Amino acid sequence: MHKSTSGSLGPSGLDLTQAFFKPISGAASPSSTKRHTKISVIGAGNVGMAIAQTILTQDLADELVLVDAKPEKLRGEMLDLQHAAAFLPRTKIIADVDYAVTVGSDLCIVTAGARQIPGESRLNLLHRNVALYRNVIPPLAKYSPDTILLIVSNPVDILTYVAWKLSGFPSNRVVGSGTNLDSSRFRFLIADHLDVNAQDVQAYIVGEHGDSSVALWSSISVGGVPVLSFLDKQEIAYEKETLESIHKVVIDSAYEVISLKGYTSWAIGYSVAALAWSILRDQRKIHPVSVLAKGFYGVDGGDVFLSLPAQLGRGGVLGVTNVHLTDEEAQRLRDSANTILEQQSQLGL
Amino acid sequence: MHKSTSGSLGPSGLDLTQAFFKPISGAASPSSTKRHTKISVIGAGNVGMAIAQTILTQDLADELVLVDAKPEKLRGEMLDLQHAAAFLPRTKIIADVDYAVTVGSDLCIVTAGARQIPGESRLNLLHRNVALYRNVIPPLAKYSPDTILLIVSNPVDILTYVAWKLSGFPSNRVVGSGTNLDSSRFRFLIADHLDVNAQDVQAYIVGEHGDSSVALWSSISVGGVPVLSFLDKQEIAYEKETLESIHKVVIDSAYEVISLKGYTSWAIGYSVAALAWSILRDQRKIHPVSVLAKGFYGVDGGDVFLSLPAQLGRGGVLGVTNVHLTDEEAQRLRDSANTILEQQSQLGL
Amino acid sequence: MHKSTSGSLGPSGLDLTQAFFKPISGAASPSSTKRHTKISVIGAGNVGMAIAQTILTQDLADELVLVDAKPEKLRGEMLDLQHAAAFLPRTKIIADVDYAVTVGSDLCIVTAGARQIPGESRLNLLHRNVALYRNVIPPLAKYSPDTILLIVSNPVDILTYVAWKLSGFPSNRVVGSGTNLDSSRFRFLIADHLDVNAQDVQAYIVGEHGDSSVALWSSISVGGVPVLSFLDKQEIAYEKETLESIHKVVIDSAYEVISLKGYTSWAIGYSVAALAWSILRDQRKIHPVSVLAKGFYGVDGGDVFLSLPAQLGRGGVLGVTNVHLTDEEAQRLRDSANTILEQQSQLGL
Amino acid sequence: MHKSTSGSLGPSGLDLTQAFFKPISGAASPSSTKRHTKISVIGAGNVGMAIAQTILTQDLADELVLVDAKPEKLRGEMLDLQHAAAFLPRTKIIADVDYAVTVGSDLCIVTAGARQIPGESRLNLLHRNVALYRNVIPPLAKYSPDTILLIVSNPVDILTYVAWKLSGFPSNRVVGSGTNLDSSRFRFLIADHLDVNAQDVQAYIVGEHGDSSVALWSSISVGGVPVLSFLDKQEIAYEKETLESIHKVVIDSAYEVISLKGYTSWAIGYSVAALAWSILRDQRKIHPVSVLAKGFYGVDGGDVFLSLPAQLGRGGVLGVTNVHLTDEEAQRLRDSANTILEQQSQLGL
Repeated sequence: MHKSTSGSLGPSGLDLTQAFFKPISGAASPSSTKRHTKISVIGAGNVGMAIAQTILTQDLADELVLVDAKPEKLRGEMLDLQHAAAFLPRTKIIADVDYAVTVGSDLCIVTAGARQIPGESRLNLLHRNVALYRNVIPPLAKYSPDTILLIVSNPVDILTYVAWKLSGFPSNRVVGSGTNLDSSRFRFLIADHLDVNAQDVQAYIVGEHGDSSVALWSSISVGGVPVLSFLDKQEIAYEKETLESIHKVVIDSAYEVISLKGYTSWAIGYSVAALAWSILRDQRKIHPVSVLAKGFYGVDGGDVFLSLPAQLGRGGVLGVTNVHLTDEEAQRLRDSANTILEQQSQLGL
Repeated sequence: MHKSTSGSLGPSGLDLTQAFFKPISGAASPSSTKRHTKISVIGAGNVGMAIAQTILTQDLADELVLVDAKPEKLRGEMLDLQHAAAFLPRTKIIADVDYAVTVGSDLCIVTAGARQIPGESRLNLLHRNVALYRNVIPPLAKYSPDTILLIVSNPVDILTYVAWKLSGFPSNRVVGSGTNLDSSRFRFLIADHLDVNAQDVQAYIVGEHGDSSVALWSSISVGGVPVLSFLDKQEIAYEKETLESIHKVVIDSAYEVISLKGYTSWAIGYSVAALAWSILRDQRKIHPVSVLAKGFYGVDGGDVFLSLPAQLGRGGVLGVTNVHLTDEEAQRLRDSANTILEQQSQLGL
Repeated sequence: MHKSTSGSLGPSGLDLTQAFFKPISGAASPSSTKRHTKISVIGAGNVGMAIAQTILTQDLADELVLVDAKPEKLRGEMLDLQHAAAFLPRTKIIADVDYAVTVGSDLCIVTAGARQIPGESRLNLLHRNVALYRNVIPPLAKYSPDTILLIVSNPVDILTYVAWKLSGFPSNRVVGSGTNLDSSRFRFLIADHLDVNAQDVQAYIVGEHGDSSVALWSSISVGGVPVLSFLDKQEIAYEKETLESIHKVVIDSAYEVISLKGYTSWAIGYSVAALAWSILRDQRKIHPVSVLAKGFYGVDGGDVFLSLPAQLGRGGVLGVTNVHLTDEEAQRLRDSANTILEQQSQLGL
Repeated sequence: MHKSTSGSLGPSGLDLTQAFFKPISGAASPSSTKRHTKISVIGAGNVGMAIAQTILTQDLADELVLVDAKPEKLRGEMLDLQHAAAFLPRTKIIADVDYAVTVGSDLCIVTAGARQIPGESRLNLLHRNVALYRNVIPPLAKYSPDTILLIVSNPVDILTYVAWKLSGFPSNRVVGSGTNLDSSRFRFLIADHLDVNAQDVQAYIVGEHGDSSVALWSSISVGGVPVLSFLDKQEIAYEKETLESIHKVVIDSAYEVISLKGYTSWAIGYSVAALAWSILRDQRKIHPVSVLAKGFYGVDGGDVFLSLPAQLGRGGVLGVTNVHLTDEEAQRLRDSANTILEQQSQLGL
């Protein structure tokens, strides 16, 4: 559909190009598509567009594809990005309602999702999202059989499982954005509290992306200094309630932003762009993302996706960091897993 | 108001920081605010936020300030940006409804503007925007008497004039985003047509940002090759209508994007961030932006702002490029100027 | 040889990694090498290392390979780059005297070259460089049959021809750095003269990289304004000698830097990194680089490489811009071509 | 001296600029120097130039100044950087043998140092370097009384002390590059060993930059997981000798690179550029750098500079992280301090 806007300039485009550029003698026909990096973003809403725009600014892709069910909105967003061409490295930006346009993607980022109808039960919403994924995942897997699927739609852990089942992909090629953003919010709050750079703060929130997420207190370090053992050694007393209140602020953050501006966009955009970077540039960095968690920390009730600190690279999920959990933390993780498994059992997949 | 979120973590923040970091002996009290770069964005709508987020991604400021009349929306946008701290270089992000927060800004970008009410006359809308600017510009000028004002609200040329009058600033420190984006769209269309990089295309649209803008055909070059004289030398015939149709696509682009997605955001965000870069990093680059045009090309009916290719740097507008206009182009420019002057005469400034 | 330094840390490396990271269940074995970007730099002298370091800083490659005949120097340079790992995105850096390490390169940048022995004739030096290239190009072509060869060694035009012949590659996949740096020096001098940003200056030097290079005066534009026709229209007189003196400063620049610091490095490093960027990220930008010039501007005496404004992308040389040359400029180009062809005829290739 | 090369283009430069650009009416005379960022690098040897070039690539400064005692070498390096203007954001690059050119620097990076004469005692070399610093530091302090001094010359800890004494600056504005590079090497070796991203490795080497540096084993964490306690919990035995051998590889790294290539340059360039970034962009990041260590960890014998994890920002050293040292580590630190203090006592400062 909207593959190019140049048609409007008349049929002389090719002729002029041929007059303007001449081939050198003995040149082979170019195979310009080889080895370029292609990212497809499914869903052109606030989240999908914040991701697409951040990817564009950070120059992660040679080709950026948008797919959405609404052709007008889709074309408007495509044109708005294309109009910035003079300010950015050259990236091919295309958009279409047809998934054929995603063919050969290195990474497919799925943000499409149904919105909750007032009064609708959570389970009913989930059923509708699963139905939507049945129309999204199989064509992505068909057109890009070697791609990595990065799931952002909520509830992200269950939908990552759904994408894994529907795609038939090995588990390392299906990953959910999970608690990567929750962990960034956690790091920001600690950094703001201590007036340090958030990039110097190490801190993980793992488990379910949502109310039952698990803050790994023992993992917090600032500039390489483990905070809790520092407090112990300095004999600085701290209340468990204080720590829990920080975690609560993190959990409430998403709700707060949504209540204030109606949705979240910028932070999830940066968060997912960071994951895309680690994957496509083979950075082997460790991120808390939703991965197949069966067998970790006693999670053994079935196939369930939960966020754990995982190493990401060109092969997708390269491994899960063997971080130490306290007994209580591990138990919370298993509780989350069981809750999710029960929901999954009702999906009929 | 929303200067920090750390208060929610309890009063122990400062204490912990003091335990965690110790001063070295003989240290002077830091004056950390000296010489850092501060940008204020007025208006947290789609345009203002696309600008703020692009500035943040491109790491142009040490401190980024948002001001808007709606406190909830404002706080939501601030939090959403802050939550990305772990993915970005450290930038202080603050937001407030009170202009005092903008004190000492190097650059103030004004995107605030009234929306047209159905049935409202263009002149009435303009009056409302002038009224709004009476509440925006004087406090900006008061809190940052040395700042540069970059006006984005529409109608941009008249409002840049209004900002100049209300601020009392010298004309080099008041500039409008003007046709910088129109020119990028023009360059994209030509680049897309020829399958070249838009950064290799030089092409200006000048004059009024809007329907009466003037495309400088003779300024178009690709990779340093002037296109029209190339066509002449190659004896390739082209129709003046074809050229005009390209210009028409540019003019229609903004309308098309607005009709499709409801507003424009990404391209204006990149466009204004590029201007901010040239100004704050003293790049001395040439951009088509709205400047005081009196005395150029026979524009002599009064003080009027129009887009001309101007060199931007730390001092604001450093000069206007003496580009050649055909008689017809110069006449169109003067016609635009007169139309704008007539509107201005009704503002009572 | 020097593929890793980790061996020195004892045999427990793999064991520890396996303890630290655990695979997720159902993961396919990763094929982490697919689609990553690999650049090989041949020659670890001042030029080769400035190129390698700039490529590393600009994050152009996932894997950077150094090859040189001197193993100690080579290992020293590799370690020096590796030690910066904490300050850079992750890039695999390897080095070896054996060309096998270059296997599967996307781009091979050849800087290796013999140095002139005092009293040695230019032709004798050329013969020695051709002999050296017989040991360099065939193994590169063997290990990376789909690579693009970017030749930097001098005399660059003849050695690009030599690389083309020895590789058997189609002409679009063999390109010389040519006058890309001369043109940057030209643009800097003009920009410095006018106090503008050099990126706003369009200006080409084409032809042979060296004393017979041709400055395209009519191609000079600043911010899209053609300078010579501007001067004509403004009735500003200029002396042809003034223009020639600028060109002479450019030609003398390389000699001056060499006489002052002993070699050139930084500018050629940035210049070649810019070419690598355009090629590998498929930017389709136009650069004056050495390409097979037969058939352009009446150059018809044989296969000769000369710098012309060429469009570069993932396919290598995509085309040559049909820039207008005056009769005198075209004649100079043909004269250069004939001089080079005569030298080539003595090479026995 | 070498402030511009444009003089060679004839006296018409200013005239042409005035013809090309016209001022707008009502413009104030620009004060373009306000608030721009200026970095001076003292010493144009391999280390100084690697720092200067990395700073240029990373666009940290609006003005970059080189000072060296050798005017030819200095001019050669300046021209070589200037010639890359077309490939970089605009940065003013100047060079002079006279320190007056450094006036108003935000940051002065001192790499100048005497080389060891074969057979010369270490103390004698130190005396010569102190003599050299007597000619370097006072003019820097005079021309830029508010600057931050970043000392790179070796022995870095003593020379940072010398710079502090000679400048009369408060201690927060004098910092040595110290073990920032040693720590990067340490992190690279651990990352290479575990096949992770070095940026995910936290690990400090503190104390003297040199053979008596102290590796903080308990500070090592990977992706937020403390490695030693991980090994304990996993009941993975490790030998203290293995850890010490890693530290030994780090200490030997500098010697190895010097023996292989004759000097170190790239890694120290990136290391110092990272410090410059944290300081000038007020990043508040934590780096192991040489600071006035009196009063920390029982170092109380006098004024001594040693590397400790310090938070850097626009005010220089903002504080020292209160990292836990074992008794043995603290004792080693004190031993280093005493050795340095004894050397300092012979300097007559």
